[in-house]
Amino acid sequence: MAISKILVANRGEIAVRIIRAARELGLKTVQAASAADETMLAARLADQTVCVGPPHASKSYLNGDALIAAARDTGCDAVHPGYGFLSENADFAEAVEAAGLIFIGPKAETIRKMGDKAAARREAELAGVPTVPGSDGVVKDVAEAQTAADAVGYPVMIKAAAGGGGRGIRIAANAEGLAQLIPQASAEAKAAFGDGGLYLERFVRRARHVEVQILGDGERAIHLFERECSLQRRRQKVWEEAPAVCLSPQQRQALCHSAVKLAERVGYRGAGTLEYLFDEETGEFFFIEMNTRIQVEHPVTEMVTGVDLVGWMIRIAGGEALSLSQEDIVLRGHAVEARINAEDPAADFRPHPGTVGGLELPGGMGVRFDTMLYPGYQIPPFYDSLLGKLIAHADSRERAIARMQRALGELTVEGVPTTVPLHLALAGAKDVRDGAFHTGWLEEWLKGRPLADDATPEKE
Amino acid sequence: MAISKILVANRGEIAVRIIRAARELGLKTVQAASAADETMLAARLADQTVCVGPPHASKSYLNGDALIAAARDTGCDAVHPGYGFLSENADFAEAVEAAGLIFIGPKAETIRKMGDKAAARREAELAGVPTVPGSDGVVKDVAEAQTAADAVGYPVMIKAAAGGGGRGIRIAANAEGLAQLIPQASAEAKAAFGDGGLYLERFVRRARHVEVQILGDGERAIHLFERECSLQRRRQKVWEEAPAVCLSPQQRQALCHSAVKLAERVGYRGAGTLEYLFDEETGEFFFIEMNTRIQVEHPVTEMVTGVDLVGWMIRIAGGEALSLSQEDIVLRGHAVEARINAEDPAADFRPHPGTVGGLELPGGMGVRFDTMLYPGYQIPPFYDSLLGKLIAHADSRERAIARMQRALGELTVEGVPTTVPLHLALAGAKDVRDGAFHTGWLEEWLKGRPLADDATPEKE
Repeated sequence: MAISKILVANRGEIAVRIIRAARELGLKTVQAASAADETMLAARLADQTVCVGPPHASKSYLNGDALIAAARDTGCDAVHPGYGFLSENADFAEAVEAAGLIFIGPKAETIRKMGDKAAARREAELAGVPTVPGSDGVVKDVAEAQTAADAVGYPVMIKAAAGGGGRGIRIAANAEGLAQLIPQASAEAKAAFGDGGLYLERFVRRARHVEVQILGDGERAIHLFERECSLQRRRQKVWEEAPAVCLSPQQRQALCHSAVKLAERVGYRGAGTLEYLFDEETGEFFFIEMNTRIQVEHPVTEMVTGVDLVGWMIRIAGGEALSLSQEDIVLRGHAVEARINAEDPAADFRPHPGTVGGLELPGGMGVRFDTMLYPGYQIPPFYDSLLGKLIAHADSRERAIARMQRALGELTVEGVPTTVPLHLALAGAKDVRDGAFHTGWLEEWLKGRPLADDATPEKE
Repeated sequence: MAISKILVANRGEIAVRIIRAARELGLKTVQAASAADETMLAARLADQTVCVGPPHASKSYLNGDALIAAARDTGCDAVHPGYGFLSENADFAEAVEAAGLIFIGPKAETIRKMGDKAAARREAELAGVPTVPGSDGVVKDVAEAQTAADAVGYPVMIKAAAGGGGRGIRIAANAEGLAQLIPQASAEAKAAFGDGGLYLERFVRRARHVEVQILGDGERAIHLFERECSLQRRRQKVWEEAPAVCLSPQQRQALCHSAVKLAERVGYRGAGTLEYLFDEETGEFFFIEMNTRIQVEHPVTEMVTGVDLVGWMIRIAGGEALSLSQEDIVLRGHAVEARINAEDPAADFRPHPGTVGGLELPGGMGVRFDTMLYPGYQIPPFYDSLLGKLIAHADSRERAIARMQRALGELTVEGVPTTVPLHLALAGAKDVRDGAFHTGWLEEWLKGRPLADDATPEKE
């Protein structure tokens, strides 16, 4: 192992996760902490903690120079970026390597290529992985749009080339609708973005978010099956599962196989995730993007496969070849994960920093709680509101949800409101139990639903 | 399911375990608590708690009438006895059934038969399961002893028929030794026990304790592989593992198959454990006794098989047939369990009741801590000193031990001394890492070894 001491260039629960994996491999850890985070759990667990800057992330967790200096000053030989912050920043990965340190993740060029959506889409197409059907770039008039739409299939989404974040999207059900909407949309796009250019994309009515976990060593890659993360609010994942309840075994096989092809094509090294949109009505899946880092929701995959993803990231970065073969990866049971945030479900999920008082953690068979919480912890107001991830694993999805309900009932966090009531309500919701949801389901379901601490399961 | 509400007729961590299993099955629980236990964790977690008597176990947890009355008064339809206390008391099981309640365990007649060592040995022999070779009862003189010893094989143990608890045992290496020792041993036995009768048993120099977990529904039984519990102090298990590191695949197969034969022969219902002595020098195993209840160390089996043993006990008692087939039971990785006791390793492991102050629990991948602890818990002085069981599971024994070390380092229990330093030292001991131990190893190893809080791993 070419690594003996790791700088943990992140915070919160993922920093704790990295320290645990490193310690089990016999490696030392140095926790990089902002001035607001010097008492966080990861700082208590690490062998050493070093302050890398003021609370604001731009001056600490996003300050590559400070992080690299901290790694060098403390004798680290590797940097683990976690998720978010600089984890998908190719320049940072390059700077880490230029400083003679190991970046625990893919090569900088892979990060750069897969971070460019158009380049990633091209790689997918070259690997034979389906992408969302659409026009070949901007359509110049109604006739060209109709020709493209015939190939894509209706309904189609009309998107502004200069837009983003879902703004200005219109949906045309047929050629007549398209002819009406194109001029309007173009005029509006011009007014809004200064550019009237439009392109088309297949509209998937009931899209489900599925993603495939990959491990590669730069030469060979394997998949660790998929997760489903369709329960989202404002594009943030709220509840995740492995495997996806919406896939048939044949669809699962095709999906996971496509991910391996793409990962091997780009010589992927480390842990990565390929995100797909799954159209439940047609059974088609389309590659959207690749995340070249560990994901928040990785534990559900660890639970159903038994593979230590963060441990493998470190081992691969340390020069170990991936000794797991695809046949070693066996799906066992079902796991669900609830993101426990310091937010008030009764006040539109407003983040709510504060000081944690009494704390009782859930436990027992099949329950894992990856958290940054400890009694007396002061949650700083500078970062996201994630406090921990409660994961329940059992031999079936039904039993995993029952276990989740039981574990949620055991979790007590005094001092701050949490999303526990939301998850209790979700675990009791008929559509969740039936697996009948899509990426728009949760926001619809939340409308007009008061979530109180005594949320009880729906009658079925 | 013929059960809707369970009386938990036990305390401590196993009561918590039963409540969790019941809740995941959608069942209600009533915790039976002595007057000293009304604030214990299980009482906080149960749907209802009922006081069944004064602190002394003979007046509460061993008071069958009070337990049955509590079950009837609270509308329970079943009783889970846990381990210890009345769990292997056939009269209690009978009384529970006579009161129209379901006893969550085997039939009373099975408990009675397997609780009688001679009867259990006979059943084993009839099932073709090897028992420790010995003379056929008392030997009347040296000549008969020598004939018997020739058949058993040297060295042999000479045991007083009226003795017990290992008292008065002598070991003869050969026929001459036997001739010398028989008259002495007989005279001493007569003096000590008023009966000079002696019998012979094979002496196993380096015995290892292995045990097979069984699940049966009264008709069919399956095994869930074995555990090894050779690390013992004063015949109390200290550290347990699954699977046993001392067995070859062929030995494992033969051992587990023998356990299924015996369990099916007696029509075993529920979860049970067959204990064996394994002779590492010859590769032979010998049945010793059966425990007709859940064992303390059951979680290591749950970790490596994924099977919820306590859940299955309840389901089988509720009338569900065992739907698992032997092929469903796959061994995955390795699990180790450390018993965390409120004892002072630096003071000859004296039990140490007290009040728990701050508490930090270990977590993360592959770690499970089945405990009765919560912050502020007052450990009563009336019962055993077990506070919890820390279990670590990984894809190999080496990684499981590394994970155990990591998790032990995260566990903080303020206010009472615990056996954490012992387990840290064990996890670092070369013989433990090499799997080179037997039932006498731990006591030898402890001699003259000071165990302080800063116990560090041995250099290897």
